[in-house]
Amino acid sequence: MHVFDEAIRLVAQPGGGWLGHTHPAYGNMVGPFGGITAAQALQAVMLDPARLGEPTALTVNFCAAMQDGPFTAAARAVRTGRSTQHWFVELQQDGQTVTSATVVTAVRREVWSAVEHRMPAVAPPQELPQVPPPRGVAWLSRYEMRFLEGGFPESWNGAEHPDSTSRLWVRDAEPRELDAAALAALCDVFFPRIWRRRERHTPAGTVSMTVYFHADAALLQRTGHAWLLAQARAQAFRNGFFDQTAQLWSPEGDLLASSHQVVYYKD
Amino acid sequence: MHVFDEAIRLVAQPGGGWLGHTHPAYGNMVGPFGGITAAQALQAVMLDPARLGEPTALTVNFCAAMQDGPFTAAARAVRTGRSTQHWFVELQQDGQTVTSATVVTAVRREVWSAVEHRMPAVAPPQELPQVPPPRGVAWLSRYEMRFLEGGFPESWNGAEHPDSTSRLWVRDAEPRELDAAALAALCDVFFPRIWRRRERHTPAGTVSMTVYFHADAALLQRTGHAWLLAQARAQAFRNGFFDQTAQLWSPEGDLLASSHQVVYYKD
Repeated sequence: MHVFDEAIRLVAQPGGGWLGHTHPAYGNMVGPFGGITAAQALQAVMLDPARLGEPTALTVNFCAAMQDGPFTAAARAVRTGRSTQHWFVELQQDGQTVTSATVVTAVRREVWSAVEHRMPAVAPPQELPQVPPPRGVAWLSRYEMRFLEGGFPESWNGAEHPDSTSRLWVRDAEPRELDAAALAALCDVFFPRIWRRRERHTPAGTVSMTVYFHADAALLQRTGHAWLLAQARAQAFRNGFFDQTAQLWSPEGDLLASSHQVVYYKD
Repeated sequence: MHVFDEAIRLVAQPGGGWLGHTHPAYGNMVGPFGGITAAQALQAVMLDPARLGEPTALTVNFCAAMQDGPFTAAARAVRTGRSTQHWFVELQQDGQTVTSATVVTAVRREVWSAVEHRMPAVAPPQELPQVPPPRGVAWLSRYEMRFLEGGFPESWNGAEHPDSTSRLWVRDAEPRELDAAALAALCDVFFPRIWRRRERHTPAGTVSMTVYFHADAALLQRTGHAWLLAQARAQAFRNGFFDQTAQLWSPEGDLLASSHQVVYYKD
């Protein structure tokens, strides 16, 4: 069993809902990696026998710090239409909501399609150096990353940069076929943009993240274990919150997901 | 009373929650303008005496077509922290959820701030022609729009364009000071990007919209009734859904909001 599947495993509870557990392999500096929490929230919908179609949109709200340990997951179909379905999900610890999420699932048909935000022309991952990630952050070892631009800060000397963009090739370190849950987690692989913009040890944490899934299961399956090109950039930093806009492409140039988040930072 | 305030008016119900009503002045082709629905959902949080701080993030899910008529609004504080608060909102008609929303509110402090996605240098609104909006859509008359690029399709001849960008100056037609509810509505003023990309009468409707509020109440108040520079672009169209990423700046170049949505389209 792949460690990602271990981490998103939810066990059905007798009274309804699910029981999950944080996984040390996806630990962050404090508590779990936000991407795995997003995948766990999505998984509560993926496992629901009443689910209609595939994920189209996911918004995850990180309401409070998740503690290492067990959590419950409850997903409720708020509204079911002919081809789309709306869900509300809550992850709780000690009876308190730590994460909430809304999920839209939909049945898709093949119609006219086009990628407008094209994948930039970049060097292939094989030509890029493998830089060891910062120590002490377990989840970083779950991914292979090859940075084209905007790698982890090294000097932390307070230098300011005009552009917060990071661009990298990324994939699971241990091979695993891509699916919606894995893609949701990958949308959160970018370190906080404030560290890229200003090389200072600024505390920062995602408050809310949205993922739009352009890829359906067939395209994800075709993508398999390929390297994905991922990039992220902030648009504004203002009084304790900044946003981030991100894209993830397959090596063939399909935009698999676009993603956005708003992040708390403490100056 | 400004027509926008009439439209977002919610009346407290004896048993808790709120009663609202769609407003003909914000009617769309069918049902209400999505932006006014977003503002109504946000308003249920704004009016709550337990609210902590100001809106930071809003995600509105358009679960089903809202019918012209009354609706109930219920907002629940899912989790309250020291400086941030997470809300879940449902708008219902006939006991069924038609709109769900999550809202993050936060108390902000003045810290290091920067706009990274800068406002493009464009002609001022006074130099641009006033083009009458398409007929038969009430809400369009609530706004003044001056397009710099990507105005309403005229020929509907099926022509394809490589770029779906629209860029315009926009403000309330009847002067009103800017606030978070008005800004949320403004994030939805863009006609469906599929019409810009392909001039065809393609049915389309927003499924989920997210707004990140960079501006606090003081900045919004300072902006007042100024023209805002607004732009939107799709990143991918795929099998019935496309995304849109948008920015709204004050004339001074402050990024007031960044916004994203995923939109259903029928080919």
